[in-house]
Amino acid sequence: MPLYNVTTQAGVLNDDAKAKFAAELTTFHSDYSRVPKDWVQVIFNDFAPGSSFSGGRPSAVATLMLHIRTGRSEEYKTEMVQRLWTLFQSATQASDNQIVVAISEVPPGQAMEMGKVMPVVAKE
Amino acid sequence: MPLYNVTTQAGVLNDDAKAKFAAELTTFHSDYSRVPKDWVQVIFNDFAPGSSFSGGRPSAVATLMLHIRTGRSEEYKTEMVQRLWTLFQSATQASDNQIVVAISEVPPGQAMEMGKVMPVVAKE
Amino acid sequence: MPLYNVTTQAGVLNDDAKAKFAAELTTFHSDYSRVPKDWVQVIFNDFAPGSSFSGGRPSAVATLMLHIRTGRSEEYKTEMVQRLWTLFQSATQASDNQIVVAISEVPPGQAMEMGKVMPVVAKE
Repeated sequence: MPLYNVTTQAGVLNDDAKAKFAAELTTFHSDYSRVPKDWVQVIFNDFAPGSSFSGGRPSAVATLMLHIRTGRSEEYKTEMVQRLWTLFQSATQASDNQIVVAISEVPPGQAMEMGKVMPVVAKE
Repeated sequence: MPLYNVTTQAGVLNDDAKAKFAAELTTFHSDYSRVPKDWVQVIFNDFAPGSSFSGGRPSAVATLMLHIRTGRSEEYKTEMVQRLWTLFQSATQASDNQIVVAISEVPPGQAMEMGKVMPVVAKE
Repeated sequence: MPLYNVTTQAGVLNDDAKAKFAAELTTFHSDYSRVPKDWVQVIFNDFAPGSSFSGGRPSAVATLMLHIRTGRSEEYKTEMVQRLWTLFQSATQASDNQIVVAISEVPPGQAMEMGKVMPVVAKE
């Protein structure tokens, strides 16, 4: 962790766009969170056209779910989600009513990365 | 948000069934939660046959994960999950031992939709 | 629940490997948690090559997300995530910097399986 799960309709992000956005997320996250870039994992998941809906109508919904450790302040998370929204909307060109961005938290003691149980968040 | 992630084996829900179920979820959610229909996002994710198991045996598992804001009562969530189960089982025709329905919560301050950080849940 | 969501690059786990790993997870979980094997649900989700990144560079990231009820001890979860890491790395042959394993929790009152709202965790 952090683990980014980016879910978009097939065709919204081609391979080049995925690589570019993954690089942007990684740089942003490392700078913002002061964790090594190598900790940042990004997975893109495509779904078929005709498989997403906004308000019950067909719509190319785009979601970005970030999984981090518990322990960050509310201010940290609220600013982060706003910064991620801007990056995500720029990458997808989706309209406001098609995008969801959220930060999900897992206590460090119940997650592993790099072969180790995650450490608690250092004092900010 | 709300964001519905519906995950089924390819072929369980065709495009028409997805559109119908998305419309049902949207109407149900808007009525139950008293939020605008436009807030309801639904994404269907298909996995290949041979990729799901119940009790270690091949089984077309069907999961519905609903992401909402924190702040709703236990009674609200327990009744909601039961109502969603009925809708989901009707849509998929899956048997009881193949279905999982769960509500996952995110604090409003760490999620965005419609270009805005989510507001806290209004008093019910 | 438990619900295992295993996400890997297409080709990392073929159908036989998925069946074998699902059986291993099911046996492990049932033994470790003292719940019936039939409660264990496993879904494998494949993403296309070129869709995952570690540290901003292409990498076949492999994630295992386990969804359980709240109510287990920290020790229970920390040991569990370590045991799952070992099983997952053995199944995928992924390197330490490509794997994320995490346990996500849902309060029993907001999840259903086997047609019933989930019971609270029995005293350990």
